[in-house]
Amino acid sequence: MPTLSHRITTLNGGGSDGWDVFYRARAMVEAGDDVIELTIGEHDIRTDPSILRAMYDSAVGGHTGYASVPGVSALRDAVAARVTAQSGVATTRENVLITPGGQAALFAAHMAACSPGDTTLIVDPFYATYPGVVRSAGAVPRAVPTEAETGFLPDRADLEAAANGAASLLINTPNNPTGAVYPRDTLEMIADVVKTCDMWLISDEVYDTQVWDGAHLSPRALPGMVERTLVIGSMSKSHAMTGSRCGWVIGPEDAISALVDLATNTTYGVPGFIQDAALFALRNPILEPEVAAPFLRRREIAARVLKGQQLVQAVPAQGAMYVMLDVRATGLSGEAFANALLDAEYIAVMPGESFGTSAAGHVRVAMTVDDAWFEDALQRLCRFAALLAEAV
Amino acid sequence: MPTLSHRITTLNGGGSDGWDVFYRARAMVEAGDDVIELTIGEHDIRTDPSILRAMYDSAVGGHTGYASVPGVSALRDAVAARVTAQSGVATTRENVLITPGGQAALFAAHMAACSPGDTTLIVDPFYATYPGVVRSAGAVPRAVPTEAETGFLPDRADLEAAANGAASLLINTPNNPTGAVYPRDTLEMIADVVKTCDMWLISDEVYDTQVWDGAHLSPRALPGMVERTLVIGSMSKSHAMTGSRCGWVIGPEDAISALVDLATNTTYGVPGFIQDAALFALRNPILEPEVAAPFLRRREIAARVLKGQQLVQAVPAQGAMYVMLDVRATGLSGEAFANALLDAEYIAVMPGESFGTSAAGHVRVAMTVDDAWFEDALQRLCRFAALLAEAV
Repeated sequence: MPTLSHRITTLNGGGSDGWDVFYRARAMVEAGDDVIELTIGEHDIRTDPSILRAMYDSAVGGHTGYASVPGVSALRDAVAARVTAQSGVATTRENVLITPGGQAALFAAHMAACSPGDTTLIVDPFYATYPGVVRSAGAVPRAVPTEAETGFLPDRADLEAAANGAASLLINTPNNPTGAVYPRDTLEMIADVVKTCDMWLISDEVYDTQVWDGAHLSPRALPGMVERTLVIGSMSKSHAMTGSRCGWVIGPEDAISALVDLATNTTYGVPGFIQDAALFALRNPILEPEVAAPFLRRREIAARVLKGQQLVQAVPAQGAMYVMLDVRATGLSGEAFANALLDAEYIAVMPGESFGTSAAGHVRVAMTVDDAWFEDALQRLCRFAALLAEAV
Repeated sequence: MPTLSHRITTLNGGGSDGWDVFYRARAMVEAGDDVIELTIGEHDIRTDPSILRAMYDSAVGGHTGYASVPGVSALRDAVAARVTAQSGVATTRENVLITPGGQAALFAAHMAACSPGDTTLIVDPFYATYPGVVRSAGAVPRAVPTEAETGFLPDRADLEAAANGAASLLINTPNNPTGAVYPRDTLEMIADVVKTCDMWLISDEVYDTQVWDGAHLSPRALPGMVERTLVIGSMSKSHAMTGSRCGWVIGPEDAISALVDLATNTTYGVPGFIQDAALFALRNPILEPEVAAPFLRRREIAARVLKGQQLVQAVPAQGAMYVMLDVRATGLSGEAFANALLDAEYIAVMPGESFGTSAAGHVRVAMTVDDAWFEDALQRLCRFAALLAEAV
């Protein structure tokens, strides 16, 4: 029999990926158990009906044939205008490729920046697919460690130690899983290292509308960065359109032109009616704050609950839809804590170890259930941690 | 500045790609000229309203979150049942990955079958993206020539001459651009060579519902082929759902499992409401013959028009939505003929040279306009060819 390519059989990198708790929780739900799932980054609301109506109107209106591969011009223009307004960097449709989701945008960006065998830097802790997306592009991920004590922000020395010979660096701000929003000085340091080492910066900014503390700064706006930054954006998190699979890459014109060639061969574009729905959504200023509001409320709930005890410490969540909790005082790893919590309390959270090694001893709690349930779940989590700590 | 990867800047292989006529025609249309476009493989009907309604109902019903990455189980089951019924090969959902379109399925299949630097065979003439999809996967396309005189079917000697060391062979039956439907003996020969050389066979069968002469045979059904064949399917051509971007790969369970890992990192699945629309479409037995019927009618129109003269010969179109016309008697290349026809008659067709070298001196005519216009366009094309031939 012919063999599968080495590339495709080694995407997971071997070993446990820390998703056991997630799959166990899903199995318990399927078996009829009442599990509170605080695992993945999916809103507890659906896509707004007005957006779905815009999609249907577009489809019934005839937009059911092949759409232009780079994206519908009006949507490319709207994304460019949005990026210009948010970042201050003049951006046109020639800087925008519409992709079938943010994940496809991440993959395309790495296909453009990395050649097979190249080393690519990712910051640990990282979103679950980052090592795999790098490997899918034939490149080799190298993790830059961070520490909870410094808010999981990358440090210059660690970054420089890893940067030698790397083709690109992938960062994510606001950050999943840590909730960090990279401050200006961190981004200026990153830009400096990236320029010195002549790397691409791939900046995943899909949570840019969910900032609770500080302000989002796109590193593409820093001096000398527009020519070497590929920004990843998406409708998924900002507009609760996860299932619509509509995202984009922002980059220099020649990079976008090459990415259009890649898209011709790998996706052949994004459904026109979905792009029209995205355009409708971007033009409606009410939708974004509506989608973000529950996470701000629940972040305040989390702060209140955690203030009532000392054992479980929260890494300050400045953005995105998660809180990262330090459970090291229980004496357990994040994975052991999450498994024990699931067994005892029927509450599912993600072990920090799911996201690399830097968040060991932590669990990530997605703020994606109803406020009352969320508060109850956090209170039970804290009581459970206290019981464990007493037994240490 | 960092450079773009060699891979992404060489996808087109350099040189003219024969699409000049297409872009010239589009520019003329935009400038207000009445051009009859017989260039690309897109139906002159839209997606059926009942399918769009099913999509909307699914979305409004709440299927707007992340869908399962391998595909919605009910759709995987429906595709598996369809493949089982058509091919006689027992197929389950574990053999099916739903992809965002047939193009994405082609790319994924090559990512699974080929490693960077591998040689991959394609049959010339080929669909426009074939060399690029191979290059996108980091592999090197090698064309197997065919001849008009033998219906553009690959020959054993040519295939064997090219096969040494190749990782995979990509075939397409019913064929775009030639309209050939590979007969059993050709497919048996291909299967024999593929097994002898221990290659993967990637079988693009997206036109399997548009067969006018003979019968479609999936090579996966031949002895010893189920373990080494990846079949590409799509809703685009069979159900006029080109813009919905919904396709699939059929293959051995371990290949599909690896492809699910790849999809997790490169697409993160297909919109659930589009999958529900596809499921609705597959369950409605009326839709497929309705979508295919115009091409059968126009194929008969083409036969009637061409019978009235001797100069322009049609390669017998047994399937798909095109007729391939031999215009060598005019003394012109396909490209020169297509350009002259566009200038003189405002009729746009694709030069055979757009699809490799084997179809030089031919033009591909898409049967994708209203019957009366199609007949008029073919009559004018024949008269124009006759005028050119007189001048030779």
